[in-house]
Amino acid sequence: MAYSYLSHLHCPKCGTEYDASVLQQLCVCGSPLLVDYDLERLAVEVKRGDVSGRRPDLWRYHELLPVQSEANVVSLGEGMTPLLPLPALGADMGIESLLMKDEGIIPTGSFKARGAAVGVSRAKELGVRELAMPTNGNAGAAWALYAARASIRSTIVMPVDAPKITRNECAVSGANLVLVDGLISDAGKIVGRAVRDFGLFDASTLKEPYRIEGKKTMGIEIAEQLGWDMPDVILYPTGGGVGLIGIHKALKELQAIGWIEPDRKLPRLVAVQAEGCAPIVKAWQEGRSESEFFANSETVAFGINVPKALGDFLVLAALRETDGCAVAVGDAELLREQETVARLEGAFVCPEGAAVFAAARALRASGWIAAGERVVALNTGAGIKYPDTVSADVPVLKPEDSLTR
Amino acid sequence: MAYSYLSHLHCPKCGTEYDASVLQQLCVCGSPLLVDYDLERLAVEVKRGDVSGRRPDLWRYHELLPVQSEANVVSLGEGMTPLLPLPALGADMGIESLLMKDEGIIPTGSFKARGAAVGVSRAKELGVRELAMPTNGNAGAAWALYAARASIRSTIVMPVDAPKITRNECAVSGANLVLVDGLISDAGKIVGRAVRDFGLFDASTLKEPYRIEGKKTMGIEIAEQLGWDMPDVILYPTGGGVGLIGIHKALKELQAIGWIEPDRKLPRLVAVQAEGCAPIVKAWQEGRSESEFFANSETVAFGINVPKALGDFLVLAALRETDGCAVAVGDAELLREQETVARLEGAFVCPEGAAVFAAARALRASGWIAAGERVVALNTGAGIKYPDTVSADVPVLKPEDSLTR
Repeated sequence: MAYSYLSHLHCPKCGTEYDASVLQQLCVCGSPLLVDYDLERLAVEVKRGDVSGRRPDLWRYHELLPVQSEANVVSLGEGMTPLLPLPALGADMGIESLLMKDEGIIPTGSFKARGAAVGVSRAKELGVRELAMPTNGNAGAAWALYAARASIRSTIVMPVDAPKITRNECAVSGANLVLVDGLISDAGKIVGRAVRDFGLFDASTLKEPYRIEGKKTMGIEIAEQLGWDMPDVILYPTGGGVGLIGIHKALKELQAIGWIEPDRKLPRLVAVQAEGCAPIVKAWQEGRSESEFFANSETVAFGINVPKALGDFLVLAALRETDGCAVAVGDAELLREQETVARLEGAFVCPEGAAVFAAARALRASGWIAAGERVVALNTGAGIKYPDTVSADVPVLKPEDSLTR
Repeated sequence: MAYSYLSHLHCPKCGTEYDASVLQQLCVCGSPLLVDYDLERLAVEVKRGDVSGRRPDLWRYHELLPVQSEANVVSLGEGMTPLLPLPALGADMGIESLLMKDEGIIPTGSFKARGAAVGVSRAKELGVRELAMPTNGNAGAAWALYAARASIRSTIVMPVDAPKITRNECAVSGANLVLVDGLISDAGKIVGRAVRDFGLFDASTLKEPYRIEGKKTMGIEIAEQLGWDMPDVILYPTGGGVGLIGIHKALKELQAIGWIEPDRKLPRLVAVQAEGCAPIVKAWQEGRSESEFFANSETVAFGINVPKALGDFLVLAALRETDGCAVAVGDAELLREQETVARLEGAFVCPEGAAVFAAARALRASGWIAAGERVVALNTGAGIKYPDTVSADVPVLKPEDSLTR
């Protein structure tokens, strides 16, 4: 039994294969690369029951992850986040079986920790000493902190408008943090020049192949937490789309190795975006296989303010293959939903997570989600990372004052 | 096999016993009440191996918790937080085997979630419709959110200086939130009057017996995560002291039921306080069994700014019984340690957690912690809840700018 069944990398666009034992970035054709495993051997040598006694973090699935040696694992305890039933909210929107995969309960407070844990571990394994990346905040914070644990230097470039807390996370980690008066796409260009000029490893979304592998563990966990079954629908807040691509990849791998029923229909995947930044939704509605740059994008759900994602074609393919869809929700709508989730269920979700619940409500109302279907909503981060989305207008008393009714 | 082996309540000061099947607050003598279980029957009917296959949250220990019926469990997925080795930080302070129990990775981002989960569940089970409590922020946030999930109304009173984010958490939950221009002791007096005037359930620290039971699960988890063994030392940031009391109680219960070696010496418990608010340290140094009100207290580690804890005598007894100690660290020292932990290990701990690492460093330097001892440091919350403790002075570029080296 190997620690990892990694075999090689391949380009989903042109089919070129790459050696996984050395650092790779994009395919020569410009597409992101995907990771392949020796699933036939894995299916024979590892049974799903083997993972059940392991520690509750994402490394319990190490055979399906790219890190070759356990000694290279850089972990802060990420993964096996709760899959929580939300009966009151479900009743409120007419979805009997509504579950939240709560990615707020993870190191750094956002699901970006998964990509960072696996990406940084593999970078360490392949000898990276210094990495650089653009970010809308959470990914940069996660990569900066995991890089610190791995003794890898990091350069993080983020928009000035990114959540302040993520700035502090980068700073405290000792990262080389730089702000840009622009969008993540502008940050990306600055990183691109630095990568070229100083020979840094480019850890930008999908420009290295291993972040997806970390994110895909959300899909494996959902399956394991449902007793190696799948829900009918999974909704995902889509910026770069890595998690959606990863979940789709995970479920297909689990079917290939027989850990979930190979003939069962995959969950319909839903890409949720904000109306102020909805390139995938626009492409979906127009029946296109790639998106176009979404100009002047703006939304309170900062993590999904990504005007053009490198993996857009993979997201759109996953929606098509699973009979899913793409929907956009307004900022007012998602902020209202954020409050509803907290009041009914006690969960303070991030605005991106709130968007997913607003989308679920709309899709149930339109009938796209049918009565009785089991629905998993992904909350990608803790609400506490975005304190400004909630306004608290609170009375201040003197010590001698009393409360009134 | 019962779901819970709860038997009754008793007063650790005067010995009076109380019925656990109805709501209780303090003993008539003014002391907090402790929860007793039928440990003899539990030891016969439940084996530690029974819990190993259960979901990774604190409810895996339900036989040792007070909730009688699983239907009353109010959970957001709290517990089984990582116990992380910190080799680089350990080497830096000369502690070979340094572990962090990371309570930042829990709903609401602080260990207060444990007390709230069990406290609110039991309050719901006993028919509470509305509760009130004073807080330094995190406990109020946790109780407000868990109460929302339980459909219990809550009134939360916190100092104006408490972390802003905890304010937002209370507000979004729909709690009745009030600020006071004073300390937690002032908030406590306002809550006391409201409890008296409006018949609310008083959920103040230790004024109801079940919060300790939630906190004690930290101790059970540490034992289970060490293969049902114990470390040599556990350091705990001490405000109200509930976690320390709970961990001590848990380890004694585990010994009584034979899940850990009954004859093995308990870990030396260390109460860590800030120099600006160190009533327990002062009492410890003076050899007293209770503390005195610590006037004009002030520290950046807001969660441990508790000038007089109701359970001080239980904390001091636990230190004495385990050959532990109490130490104070300065704000500058703990802020420096917060940065060191992040730079060496990638963990952004809260200032209270940072205090514990600073104390470990000092105790190792003084020889109180010996070479080769296994040390567990409790980080009670996520650093992201206190963004102001880190300053990020960051350059801002224009999109056309490039990085320099």
